[in-house]
Amino acid sequence: MPTGDSALTIAINAGMSVVAFYVCVRVIPQFKEMFIKANLFGIDLNKPGSKEKVPEALGVVCGAVFLCTMFLFMPVPFYKQLAENTPGKFPHHEYIHYLAALLSICCMIFLGFADDVLDLKWRDKLFLPTFASLPLLTVYFVNINATNVVMPVQLRWLLGWSITLGPLYYLYMGMLAVFCTNAINIHSGVNGLEVGQSCVIAVSVLVFNFLEMQGEHRLGHVFSIYFMMPFLAVSLALLVHNWYPSRVFVGDTYCYFAGMTFAVVGILSHFSKTMLLFFIPQVFNFLYSLPQLFHFIPCPRHRLPRVDPASGKLTMSLSVFKTGSLPPLGRLFLRLFSMLGLVSVQTGVGQDGAFTQVNNMTLNNLLLKMLGPLHERTLVILQLLIQVLGSCVAFLIRYQLTKIFYHS
Amino acid sequence: MPTGDSALTIAINAGMSVVAFYVCVRVIPQFKEMFIKANLFGIDLNKPGSKEKVPEALGVVCGAVFLCTMFLFMPVPFYKQLAENTPGKFPHHEYIHYLAALLSICCMIFLGFADDVLDLKWRDKLFLPTFASLPLLTVYFVNINATNVVMPVQLRWLLGWSITLGPLYYLYMGMLAVFCTNAINIHSGVNGLEVGQSCVIAVSVLVFNFLEMQGEHRLGHVFSIYFMMPFLAVSLALLVHNWYPSRVFVGDTYCYFAGMTFAVVGILSHFSKTMLLFFIPQVFNFLYSLPQLFHFIPCPRHRLPRVDPASGKLTMSLSVFKTGSLPPLGRLFLRLFSMLGLVSVQTGVGQDGAFTQVNNMTLNNLLLKMLGPLHERTLVILQLLIQVLGSCVAFLIRYQLTKIFYHS
Repeated sequence: MPTGDSALTIAINAGMSVVAFYVCVRVIPQFKEMFIKANLFGIDLNKPGSKEKVPEALGVVCGAVFLCTMFLFMPVPFYKQLAENTPGKFPHHEYIHYLAALLSICCMIFLGFADDVLDLKWRDKLFLPTFASLPLLTVYFVNINATNVVMPVQLRWLLGWSITLGPLYYLYMGMLAVFCTNAINIHSGVNGLEVGQSCVIAVSVLVFNFLEMQGEHRLGHVFSIYFMMPFLAVSLALLVHNWYPSRVFVGDTYCYFAGMTFAVVGILSHFSKTMLLFFIPQVFNFLYSLPQLFHFIPCPRHRLPRVDPASGKLTMSLSVFKTGSLPPLGRLFLRLFSMLGLVSVQTGVGQDGAFTQVNNMTLNNLLLKMLGPLHERTLVILQLLIQVLGSCVAFLIRYQLTKIFYHS
Repeated sequence: MPTGDSALTIAINAGMSVVAFYVCVRVIPQFKEMFIKANLFGIDLNKPGSKEKVPEALGVVCGAVFLCTMFLFMPVPFYKQLAENTPGKFPHHEYIHYLAALLSICCMIFLGFADDVLDLKWRDKLFLPTFASLPLLTVYFVNINATNVVMPVQLRWLLGWSITLGPLYYLYMGMLAVFCTNAINIHSGVNGLEVGQSCVIAVSVLVFNFLEMQGEHRLGHVFSIYFMMPFLAVSLALLVHNWYPSRVFVGDTYCYFAGMTFAVVGILSHFSKTMLLFFIPQVFNFLYSLPQLFHFIPCPRHRLPRVDPASGKLTMSLSVFKTGSLPPLGRLFLRLFSMLGLVSVQTGVGQDGAFTQVNNMTLNNLLLKMLGPLHERTLVILQLLIQVLGSCVAFLIRYQLTKIFYHS
């Protein structure tokens, strides 16, 4: 992208984002009937007695508006070169970033929507994202190809100033896309959480980009801003309709779209490690979930908190299983998590006392375990505050803690 | 793309296409249940008494396999440059074609699938394809930007050797994408026709590419071959399941996918006019349909031939309307088409004889009007023969008739 006038192009991008927000806010309700007619709807399990059909997968509208905005915006940073159009002068090596990024994002929106409609198998869900990141990695390879990781001062006597990871770094980037996507998806369960957390992450990324805009990776941060502002705009528009009590659900489509957008920006703007720092609550939720994800401890199909019809408040959801059926690793994790106060275990339940029950291992349930039953809206606000806190910690690590390890 | 060894890369592309064919043939039946469960199915109206649910929109599987194949193939033409990876040496201006083409195609598969699931409004259907062609046109602008049309010898005294169309040429290219997409879609109605016609067109394009491969636009034709072979492969795989009697329907997804692939290849390889020549039956069908598409003559929701339950053969479907309700333009078209033998009109039908009936204006119905009731399979084979004939005429025009006008 041209270096001279990014203030102007950022302003244009901001203007287009505002338009995208209004378009999205207006358009989403118009699609509600269409989604319900197409059998894309759910019943909100946390609204006692409600039988209302809530349209699902509205993230696809967001994604489409985002793509249209970016298609319209793409020529803007290159307007001078386009106006001249001298053969051989156009910065193809920069334009290629936009195309590769949008190709990967478009693929993921498509996959997410297909998943919402068809309920794909795990096999298919891992299949396409891996392919979708290939053009991105090729572009990274030819344009950037930095696979070295700078070592902390304390290790340089052993490993040298930096080590080159080579193919391992590409594997890491490929997995980053899969991680971001799924981390947002499994850290959901209450109205507005998926979109809310994505908005907080997007704002954090934007703050980071604006802070770093005068630094040596200036172009990468400007590129990131161009993607993050429209993304934040369409996400906020979705949040308007998805906030408690939700009139629409976002679907896997939104989670895939959001995750891939973060991954793409982190990779092509070369700050994927800082990006991961903004995912602290998701990383914790993922690690905390592992014993259930790997089925060391039985994992029911849905792990969202359940509503107590009497009080209307949410309480932890439970996994109940025969005490004797738990594999050794499951018992180990249960004891460890119990010691750390991360789970509340009750043995000897059920007829003949042969069953054990434990809260499902998600951040949502952990908060309910610690704070007692909460109203759904309170839980969402709490989760978003944690996300904000996570970003503060991320900035602290990025700007303070690294000094100890890198003497920057 | 590198000029030295395209024989090798074409061979690799051919090999990958064969794999794509087998994967697609095997995978499509595995998705059938999933589609029916997701409410994506239709009842074949031309199979008397059949209540079988035929899964719809299986074109999306084709499209996904095509995308994966292309993602895997993309680095191949650049393997030498990738192996060296000297900074500044990578041919970004060539790689950008692949990314822009796949971005447009991916967008259209996504839109087609959304249309099949949600039954989009016309407004939305015109909205996204226009945006989807923007990256393509930008790439055309910076890399090719040839908007001049060479004049026939007979007109050069008046208009000069060629005229530069400028923005009009971009409008034409944008409309080409919309035309190709819809031309395939409205020229359907019997089992296997959408896919069959696309296969014939793809083979014709491939023949043209191989004929021209030694010419001055060599690189464009090689680029086209890279896209057409995998496209033909996944289309043939779909045809296996969509051939009479269809076990799957292709949906708008396939028509959008096929149309955009042809448009992209025609535009970026710079033979869009020859591409249009391969659409002769579709162009005829489109022009013939115009009076109904513009509602000068009433147009029922479905215009496919209807089955005669007694004989099991297909007959023309009819548009029936009050004779007096026909607007003047409708009457004009009816008289004109009637004189040319293109429609069979019957006036004075219905109670009190106030109604007129006329066959719906599609090539399918025209064939049935001329040849009498036909078995569905016979009609499909006939249509595909017409498509082959159309391609022969196209080659005749391209290689013989142009001599008269251009003295090539």
